[in-house]
Amino acid sequence: MEDAVRLELERTRAEVDQALREYLAGTKGIPRRLQAAMGHSLLGGGKRLRPILALWTWQACKSHQSARSANRQRVMMAACGLEMLHTYSLIHDDLPAMDDDVLRRGRQTCHVAFDEGTAILAGDALQAQGFALLARSGRDRAAALVELVAAAVGPAGMVGGQQKDLDAEGQEVTLALIRRIHIDKTAKLLSAALASGALLAGCGRGTLNQITQAGLDLGLAFQGADDILDITATTAQLGKSVGKDQAAGKATWVALEGLENARKRTSRTGNRGIRNLAEALPQGKFTDRLLALARALWQREN
Amino acid sequence: MEDAVRLELERTRAEVDQALREYLAGTKGIPRRLQAAMGHSLLGGGKRLRPILALWTWQACKSHQSARSANRQRVMMAACGLEMLHTYSLIHDDLPAMDDDVLRRGRQTCHVAFDEGTAILAGDALQAQGFALLARSGRDRAAALVELVAAAVGPAGMVGGQQKDLDAEGQEVTLALIRRIHIDKTAKLLSAALASGALLAGCGRGTLNQITQAGLDLGLAFQGADDILDITATTAQLGKSVGKDQAAGKATWVALEGLENARKRTSRTGNRGIRNLAEALPQGKFTDRLLALARALWQREN
Repeated sequence: MEDAVRLELERTRAEVDQALREYLAGTKGIPRRLQAAMGHSLLGGGKRLRPILALWTWQACKSHQSARSANRQRVMMAACGLEMLHTYSLIHDDLPAMDDDVLRRGRQTCHVAFDEGTAILAGDALQAQGFALLARSGRDRAAALVELVAAAVGPAGMVGGQQKDLDAEGQEVTLALIRRIHIDKTAKLLSAALASGALLAGCGRGTLNQITQAGLDLGLAFQGADDILDITATTAQLGKSVGKDQAAGKATWVALEGLENARKRTSRTGNRGIRNLAEALPQGKFTDRLLALARALWQREN
Repeated sequence: MEDAVRLELERTRAEVDQALREYLAGTKGIPRRLQAAMGHSLLGGGKRLRPILALWTWQACKSHQSARSANRQRVMMAACGLEMLHTYSLIHDDLPAMDDDVLRRGRQTCHVAFDEGTAILAGDALQAQGFALLARSGRDRAAALVELVAAAVGPAGMVGGQQKDLDAEGQEVTLALIRRIHIDKTAKLLSAALASGALLAGCGRGTLNQITQAGLDLGLAFQGADDILDITATTAQLGKSVGKDQAAGKATWVALEGLENARKRTSRTGNRGIRNLAEALPQGKFTDRLLALARALWQREN
């Protein structure tokens, strides 16, 4: 990634962090312990990929749709809603009854820092807050936006993927099943982030479908990179436990077809996503910036 | 409650049950085990008070607002969304890390019938599905509807109430704190059910506020009746464990001021709710029916 893009990425990430802090602090009447648990997981670092993808997709699309486009403040609201939904899933996935992890984003997981009951509630609260922000940001497009994201994180999306993942542990799996798990668990929300930005920019159904499809490939490549890093990276690089997939007998491409083939598959899928995303968007510097970020989803070291 | 109203109540409940079954079966791509867990808790009985309150409030309001009113199918959609949100909260509240209960709606709790991980996911999934249905039903009013309900079930509502409840266990509590817990944990969602019906009927801000306020009193009275029944009823009557509040040192009116005073407070609060609800609604048979149901929220044996 070029230095100029990296700089913009850092700037946008800082803006997202600031907005998340404000939305969390701005909700009155949250019990102190619950707010602390939500903040522990939400404000404790994180790459903010989903919010930045939403913001940058909106920016790339809106030049051609400016009359129908939402303003940046509303898109930031939706972006933060997406990050809350992602964070809730991390908190719940890390619970003892699920992946039972102690480290996330370089700090203790929520149930370790607080307790299990509080962690379950913090996740539940972030899901509700996430949808509230999406509804507010969507205004007259709230129905479409909430439905789109709810489908991505619901039982036929992220939650269903986590269930399939749990069900598959220790079982014999196929490449097709791994693909299904990765699409549901990871790719659908990541793709919904792109689609949310496009929807708020006023894009029509055709463009939305193209972007959604490209987002699924990019999400698959992102998850492929995750599985590869679980083998090749260190805990310090990732800020979360490594080698856990292998230990838990998790369904990953690496486990099934080896590191080299997994690398090839990841890059093939990612490149297809990039091509299709580029086709769906108007040419220009904002599209170039988004494509650079999209490429970094799988060409990364952490 | 008169027999005629009781009959209509049964009819509406059967319709809600049928609609819930259809919405759950109608979502493609849910992993089998997850769908079974969702169905176990969602379709395994339940009084369906929140959906019926939404439907009957809509019916009572719409006669005067018919031009701006949603049709019954859309209100049923929202009603089912509310029941999904309520059911998710029951599944999570029953978890070992929370109230650790084994019996609910006359059958095993979700984590006993399945496992903890699946129960957490089933609750998460029902929350997402609930918001998806609310968004769809709301159409151009989706933003207001989702925001209203998200505030009721989020960290400053139901989830926050459950946190306060957990925090208060074994602690010395005041009447004011109990009131706060009951408002957040129970009354806000019940009140949001009434408000959702009014919103979909096209009621204005003033009426909505009146109905919301009345709903909070009715919710408090409903919770008061719950706490009294925990002492006076049998497990067979309630379909859930009894005497648990006392055993867990839970914050209830009964624990703090005794059974008789709790009964008086419950009926005083409930009657105030009824008066204010009657004032907010146009006179007519649909309002009478709703008021009869509202009265039964605390004058009940199960």
